[in-house]
Amino acid sequence: MAYHLLQHERKGAAALASALSRALQDLQHCQRCNNFSETPLCERCASPRRDASLLCIVESPVDMNVMEQTMAYQGLYYVIMGRISPLDGVGVKQLGMDRLMHRVLDGLVQEVILATNYTNEGEATAHYIASLLEEKGIRVSRLARGVPVGGELEYVDAGTLAQAFRERRLVER
Amino acid sequence: MAYHLLQHERKGAAALASALSRALQDLQHCQRCNNFSETPLCERCASPRRDASLLCIVESPVDMNVMEQTMAYQGLYYVIMGRISPLDGVGVKQLGMDRLMHRVLDGLVQEVILATNYTNEGEATAHYIASLLEEKGIRVSRLARGVPVGGELEYVDAGTLAQAFRERRLVER
Repeated sequence: MAYHLLQHERKGAAALASALSRALQDLQHCQRCNNFSETPLCERCASPRRDASLLCIVESPVDMNVMEQTMAYQGLYYVIMGRISPLDGVGVKQLGMDRLMHRVLDGLVQEVILATNYTNEGEATAHYIASLLEEKGIRVSRLARGVPVGGELEYVDAGTLAQAFRERRLVER
Repeated sequence: MAYHLLQHERKGAAALASALSRALQDLQHCQRCNNFSETPLCERCASPRRDASLLCIVESPVDMNVMEQTMAYQGLYYVIMGRISPLDGVGVKQLGMDRLMHRVLDGLVQEVILATNYTNEGEATAHYIASLLEEKGIRVSRLARGVPVGGELEYVDAGTLAQAFRERRLVER
């Protein structure tokens, strides 16, 4: 990309450079959700139309965006900006879990939805947060695992199918 | 395939032809599970090691095979050999639902697991079977829908993610 910009897009390169340094200067972490924001409190956290009793915990800003795209969730978020990953030297201290706990225990949150990835690191992170929230009187939930919507069993991997069987749900009458 | 066999694999073509006509002659539907079988009662249905209180309903023999590959399920099956699909002219009559009901109400089955596909036709078929089983005193469950095992939210489609949110589960303590 750098070569292309320098050879064919010198104006684009200048624009990118100035945009990046502006972002470096102006962007900060939102005080409530920890996502990038131009203001101390981001637009979403400041909005009175979001449901403050639901807090969805995601690993990264991208995950927050995909959750927003579903149009199914109206609550607030907390962005960890990482995951527990001992191999990369990222432990509990690096992730600022005390800040997360401070956010969760604001008195308004009634349910925490763990929306970390279903990878090993994401699962470990979810387990750790769930253990921190034990006996705090807050509902803790996790996104459902199983067969994707529109999916045919024939093309689903065995691990997912086994999980979908173990976590089968009673059909409501 | 036909051209390849006739040009390069004439022996293979003969073997395939005889295997197919043997299958046409010898294969029948198992009296209990409706799957193809060489005997009136297939090996799986005759096995005393399977749990007769669980009955998993699938659309096709392939779906039964993938469920078996998970090694997570020890119950019995019923293979519908199709799905409700008005566009293809397949309705309730063509699928032999009375035979299915006869199988379910054998007195041993305590739970029916609807493992039809998560396509529109599969969902309609599952709904119809669930409605037939209403007030029969049998648990009816459905495979879980949601994020695949190992999945990262970033690469999951919005419909699946919305479903995973709506069907989120409480984390067990």
